[in-house]
Amino acid sequence: MIKEGGMMLKYEDAKDIILNCFNEVKAKSINVIKSFNYVLAEDIVTIRDYPDTKKSAVDGFAIKGLDRNSYRIVNTFSPGMQVDINLGKGEAVFVMTGAVVPENADAVVRVEDCVIDGDIVTINCNLTNGMNINNIGEEVGINQHVVTKGVLINERIFPILCYLGLKEVKVYEKPKVGIFTTGNEILELGEDYRKGFVYNTNRYIAECFLKKLEIPYEYYGNIIDDENSVFNAFAEMTEKYDIIISSGGISMGKYDFVKKVLNDKKFDIVVNKTKIKPGSPLLVARNNNCMIFGMPGYPAAFFTNFVLYLLPFIKKACGFRDFENKIVDVILKDYMHSRKSSDYFNRATIKYENGNFLAYGVGSQKTSHFINFAKVNGFVRIKEGVGDLKAGDKCEGLIFNFESIL
Amino acid sequence: MIKEGGMMLKYEDAKDIILNCFNEVKAKSINVIKSFNYVLAEDIVTIRDYPDTKKSAVDGFAIKGLDRNSYRIVNTFSPGMQVDINLGKGEAVFVMTGAVVPENADAVVRVEDCVIDGDIVTINCNLTNGMNINNIGEEVGINQHVVTKGVLINERIFPILCYLGLKEVKVYEKPKVGIFTTGNEILELGEDYRKGFVYNTNRYIAECFLKKLEIPYEYYGNIIDDENSVFNAFAEMTEKYDIIISSGGISMGKYDFVKKVLNDKKFDIVVNKTKIKPGSPLLVARNNNCMIFGMPGYPAAFFTNFVLYLLPFIKKACGFRDFENKIVDVILKDYMHSRKSSDYFNRATIKYENGNFLAYGVGSQKTSHFINFAKVNGFVRIKEGVGDLKAGDKCEGLIFNFESIL
Repeated sequence: MIKEGGMMLKYEDAKDIILNCFNEVKAKSINVIKSFNYVLAEDIVTIRDYPDTKKSAVDGFAIKGLDRNSYRIVNTFSPGMQVDINLGKGEAVFVMTGAVVPENADAVVRVEDCVIDGDIVTINCNLTNGMNINNIGEEVGINQHVVTKGVLINERIFPILCYLGLKEVKVYEKPKVGIFTTGNEILELGEDYRKGFVYNTNRYIAECFLKKLEIPYEYYGNIIDDENSVFNAFAEMTEKYDIIISSGGISMGKYDFVKKVLNDKKFDIVVNKTKIKPGSPLLVARNNNCMIFGMPGYPAAFFTNFVLYLLPFIKKACGFRDFENKIVDVILKDYMHSRKSSDYFNRATIKYENGNFLAYGVGSQKTSHFINFAKVNGFVRIKEGVGDLKAGDKCEGLIFNFESIL
Repeated sequence: MIKEGGMMLKYEDAKDIILNCFNEVKAKSINVIKSFNYVLAEDIVTIRDYPDTKKSAVDGFAIKGLDRNSYRIVNTFSPGMQVDINLGKGEAVFVMTGAVVPENADAVVRVEDCVIDGDIVTINCNLTNGMNINNIGEEVGINQHVVTKGVLINERIFPILCYLGLKEVKVYEKPKVGIFTTGNEILELGEDYRKGFVYNTNRYIAECFLKKLEIPYEYYGNIIDDENSVFNAFAEMTEKYDIIISSGGISMGKYDFVKKVLNDKKFDIVVNKTKIKPGSPLLVARNNNCMIFGMPGYPAAFFTNFVLYLLPFIKKACGFRDFENKIVDVILKDYMHSRKSSDYFNRATIKYENGNFLAYGVGSQKTSHFINFAKVNGFVRIKEGVGDLKAGDKCEGLIFNFESIL
């Protein structure tokens, strides 16, 4: 058995320690077209006026002079045409929506308000100066701040970068992640089942979250319970990755080689156990610029620790300004058990209904159970010292899957 | 100019017509490992008991007989070991967490409650039958329903499929999407800027949403404003894609060839304009099994129509049971303009604060403006006949980006 040193950390303390381990995030310039799902590393500022010419807001006639109701049509302009004429007084050009309007035009009249007879257009409405013209810089002028750095270039931001006509954009580099699992009892997906074994699940919990964030990762394999194999895995991986995620091997048993290796080989132990349930045995270590997350082996514990500690760390490592998990006040719809000795993060389905976030239980909270995570989109946090809660009680809810709250 | 026929449809009517155009979604069996981000086309039912053997919940000693406090240690079992022994009365084996427990063991005693002396273990706690043993089927028994079809195989569901040890899973096939844009004024990303032109934005709005859903798409190019080119594009694409998204060319101008081609060439016009702002000119047509979305050219109108009509249609085409946009009651924080003649979908930042969803204005609502979409995560819907609303008024909010509500 391994000797245990140090104090069990509280959830917030452990999270803060982990987040503070963080090294500076590097930025790089990339082609805008490749920037989707990166985090912006610079504020976006307009590089010209939008629009940068007068443009027509409608299909109609751009006219010069507001003192008459008949004009001579001298041309037709569609969007994308290079327009370089001055209208004479009493002249009109047909302009389509979005087309450039001659600089000295006084107004554009909607085609619906016009009667055309040969090259003469007669206007049937009141004229006001500048009507139906989108002026230079009307949307946003040059050198104006548009987006603040630290946000994900998602389906809202990416099209803006395109619209602005940027070619390059500064983004934060993404961390490189290596994953391995441990345990002689682990079967790989697709392998034939053997009684008493369990299928590799933690690998895929990690991979799913990393895929969602489009973070490059490699799976190093399932390492058998052998000290040298675990040592070699760490030795190779700390050279290659910014973040290592391992699963299992961090209890006090004689086969818990992840713990043994991280303790013996002079890694810098940052967190050794946290006072939460499920998944207290979390072991976080550092080796130069590589952060190592020794995660518990039960999938429920792995998943919970992933959301609580790894997700904010990874988001910070990606450059997110807003990297913390989101907390809401929830009202319990079901009884929830906890012991006063730890922070309990009970799995739950959190729904927004009739103006409140409601937290429904999903059955078992046993660490050895996992199947009911199919229904879980968040955790109910019952803080140390609180004890059991009943339906109707209020507490904190942590949501990790927002699309499912409605 | 093109002659206009038929009635402008209301938002809900147009949406229902579009959603009802939908052909049956085909399902296919795929390897579980490839199923991430597909939609489940079958209910998931357990194929064995979980666990399927008695397992230890702790590191400790599995014992036979509860009538004594000393036992003879006969073996050590780690997880993954094939265990096939019966304990004799008074015998114990050391079992690690998750290891198989001999079938006739009566209890497992935590190692913390044991004193070991040679091959004798002495117990320092009360013994109860079955303690610290996870029984067969305790989590979920065989043939139990676990997940209902029609849900996205996301970071919650995928690991469950792994955990269950499934090899193949039935998923819905994804639609194949073709995109083209129109307009002589369109510059492609990275092209040098030319005064009066605009950068292709709508292509990327579509691509971002499709990427998020991992839907295969091809971009067919920007088609110049020429009837034959547009006709040829449609002719080729209707053969290849389930959904075609085009941008621009659907107004009544003489260069609006998308409208001309879809009207003249005997496509089945499903929706011709909807009574919304921004982006009323939406034109939806059908050709055999291909749905064609002729989208408006202004990015604000394109984006709004994409969220209102295309997103639910695409999700339905992917097999989502829950494909509609999510609506919440919002309280306006800012004045919002609307005319009584249409449903207004005003861009907004929707935030959950102090127990309410609040909708903040983002400045201009002009269809020709787009840059403020950087702040937009939803729309405030002001229904036909309502008119302007002021801060404090309540109305409907449609959220399309949930991560940003907190």
